[in-house]
Amino acid sequence: MSDEREKLELEEEALLSALSSHSVDEFRKIYLELHPYDQAKFFVKLDEHDRSTLYTYLSPEEMAAVFENIKDEDDQYETYLSEMDPTFAANMLGQMYADDAVDVLNELNKDQVASYLTIMDDEAAEEIRELLHYEEYTAGSIMTTEYISIHANQTVHSAMQILKNEAPNAETIYYIYVIDKDKKLVGVISLRDLIINEPDEMISEVMNERVYSVSVAEDQEEVARKMKDYNFLAVPVIDFQGHLLGIITVDDIVDVIDEEASDDYSKLAAISDVDSNDRGPLTAAKKRLPWLIILLFLGMFTASLIGRFEETLDKVAILAVFIPLIAGMAGNTGTQALAVAVRRIAVGDLEDQSTIKMIVREAGTGLITGTICGVVVTLIVFIWQEDIFLGLLVGISILATLTVATIAGAFIPLIMHRLKVDPAVASGPFITTINDIISILIYFGMATLFMQYLI
Amino acid sequence: MSDEREKLELEEEALLSALSSHSVDEFRKIYLELHPYDQAKFFVKLDEHDRSTLYTYLSPEEMAAVFENIKDEDDQYETYLSEMDPTFAANMLGQMYADDAVDVLNELNKDQVASYLTIMDDEAAEEIRELLHYEEYTAGSIMTTEYISIHANQTVHSAMQILKNEAPNAETIYYIYVIDKDKKLVGVISLRDLIINEPDEMISEVMNERVYSVSVAEDQEEVARKMKDYNFLAVPVIDFQGHLLGIITVDDIVDVIDEEASDDYSKLAAISDVDSNDRGPLTAAKKRLPWLIILLFLGMFTASLIGRFEETLDKVAILAVFIPLIAGMAGNTGTQALAVAVRRIAVGDLEDQSTIKMIVREAGTGLITGTICGVVVTLIVFIWQEDIFLGLLVGISILATLTVATIAGAFIPLIMHRLKVDPAVASGPFITTINDIISILIYFGMATLFMQYLI
Repeated sequence: MSDEREKLELEEEALLSALSSHSVDEFRKIYLELHPYDQAKFFVKLDEHDRSTLYTYLSPEEMAAVFENIKDEDDQYETYLSEMDPTFAANMLGQMYADDAVDVLNELNKDQVASYLTIMDDEAAEEIRELLHYEEYTAGSIMTTEYISIHANQTVHSAMQILKNEAPNAETIYYIYVIDKDKKLVGVISLRDLIINEPDEMISEVMNERVYSVSVAEDQEEVARKMKDYNFLAVPVIDFQGHLLGIITVDDIVDVIDEEASDDYSKLAAISDVDSNDRGPLTAAKKRLPWLIILLFLGMFTASLIGRFEETLDKVAILAVFIPLIAGMAGNTGTQALAVAVRRIAVGDLEDQSTIKMIVREAGTGLITGTICGVVVTLIVFIWQEDIFLGLLVGISILATLTVATIAGAFIPLIMHRLKVDPAVASGPFITTINDIISILIYFGMATLFMQYLI
Repeated sequence: MSDEREKLELEEEALLSALSSHSVDEFRKIYLELHPYDQAKFFVKLDEHDRSTLYTYLSPEEMAAVFENIKDEDDQYETYLSEMDPTFAANMLGQMYADDAVDVLNELNKDQVASYLTIMDDEAAEEIRELLHYEEYTAGSIMTTEYISIHANQTVHSAMQILKNEAPNAETIYYIYVIDKDKKLVGVISLRDLIINEPDEMISEVMNERVYSVSVAEDQEEVARKMKDYNFLAVPVIDFQGHLLGIITVDDIVDVIDEEASDDYSKLAAISDVDSNDRGPLTAAKKRLPWLIILLFLGMFTASLIGRFEETLDKVAILAVFIPLIAGMAGNTGTQALAVAVRRIAVGDLEDQSTIKMIVREAGTGLITGTICGVVVTLIVFIWQEDIFLGLLVGISILATLTVATIAGAFIPLIMHRLKVDPAVASGPFITTINDIISILIYFGMATLFMQYLI
């Protein structure tokens, strides 16, 4: 693969020099040989001047393939389009797979969308208009309408003919969907099955009537899970009456799985989204500051809580030594429980009985880890400070804190899930802060209560 | 889809009653109509007695399809196999796709593997033996040898004939690989292209000579990234001389992406892996305790560090109030920087120049967030405690801590990556603890230095 990388670098240099010397033919020869993903990677690295030249070297159809493969640069779509001649831009959008074109148009304002759709070829504009209706993160928003459908009373041979004609435009040709006269989905046949069966067999004889489909309003994460579990390369999307509306292909699902996982990860780390792009520190700071400021105020609240125990602290200064330990352990165990709960919700492993079972399980887990950690802490503090009461105070605080913090870590995302809030928002830092507060109340509460043994 | 779920539940009930009334035909009729994933889901829910009955109802080939679709239950493979007749088990393993069979065998000890391979059909055993050599998490470990290959001097028509014959056994028929007489990979043709082209065209004319391949020793995460970027449904695996060894299909890649993301997530939350299975609290506690105990000792170290400042604390008890705030903010900002660094490493966006650029960027980010948070904190503490020196102490500590913690959060995973350690191991809690220590040294160091203004 390093050979390939070297080759690619050489080609990129050749492309750049072809651009600057205005050698159209040379440029096209090399560029169109590249995989569209590499074409897109080259394109996004260019400056405005070179991009303007490039637009004049490619047809709208060729440019469409480039645009379909631009990843992680959604915020640049508008810039790119504004650099193009509007008719060229509209033609290019019309040539893209409808689902990809919709992704681009979703980054523009309504007036811009309307004007591109007006210039565009009617059929393409109609397809795109339909897809634009669907809400983000639903099956409808990631489906495409470029699928192949046939009727049950056709033969395998005629199905193959349809397939040959539509293959250049369809997003996948590996599943062919069978519909009735009302466009209702009644079956599916894979290209594998078409090839294996005799040409004169009827589709109704060889098709699979048990079609797995998803509803157009279904959450994209749900769709991704199904496709992953069932190893589908594509899945049909239907409305509530069973009409076939479109299909979702596995390449879009791979992106969804990646995005959703990255999203959960970011939230656990309290960043709105991981900026893998090379932006300046000001942009990065702007993204992280909202979270930090919220956490700062929550931290201030914790501080004011400790402030109420200033008298206790004044008498027994050693108490302060264990604050980070206890608060830290509460945070750690809470984050563990949270992560398990968030992932379980994400994989959909959550029916009514199992919610209660999960809380009970987490309580048990917290009790076990709390007891073990509590005993260890009591012993260490006793040996270190030669004070069994202090040891017991810290140990019992750890036991109580770990139990409560574990339950809180599991309970809070479950509640949020019930309230239809994305449980991943309840991220690490929030759980940690809530558990800070719980742990400090337990620790200082007990210390104040048993003050006489500590002085 | 809820209709489908209801239907599935009814079918599962019917299957259970067929099992208990020993109605083989009834059972087979319903069971074999199910998608293999649903077959597997039903299978893992059975108790040992019912499983034993089920083995006698299915052929090794039918059972192989079930086994290929068992997910997240790797630790049960051994149990299931031990319940079967050894010849039946060996036959079943031989009927599975070789890569899936290897996944199962990897869970057994060497003696068990050897004995199954001895009973098994020679050809299948040979394929499996080859795959067993490859190290875990490499391309070799997830590839399969059930691909379709042809020679360049064949016609499209004869390629279609080969495809028809091999379709029932190949894991994918959507790409056909072209090899020379030494078995070296020289081209690829998609089934789509085969169908579009005329039957008498030569493969050498229509094949794509620019084949993207991966090396057999390549990391599976790297392979996943390529397949995701290029939207491949399958990718060929070659040795360092360019011989075709196998292929990796997109369904395995979807699992890899999911696993790796889930792995990073787990490590950020300090759990070895997210147990989405419904195990008891004892199992859960056992998985989480090792991390908690390590963090406990790190926390004890932090506590002993604060212990050294007991004198300072004795004089100015109010200092204790801000410990969780400062340590917490250091932890939060460190985790943010860590998450960004880990994800950047994961997407491979990391060349030499960009490492230094990233550290500089993070230092700038830390300085900006630190300054803003520091000013806010100074004001709040001043208003609350009416003590400008205390305010300045806490504010400047926050500024210094946030800057250092942000750099540490980005730097540590980068170092680990250089040392070939998975940077995700440097997980949230470790960064948090290191930042706890840094923040406490800064805070108490400054407090001790400026003691005279605080009393």
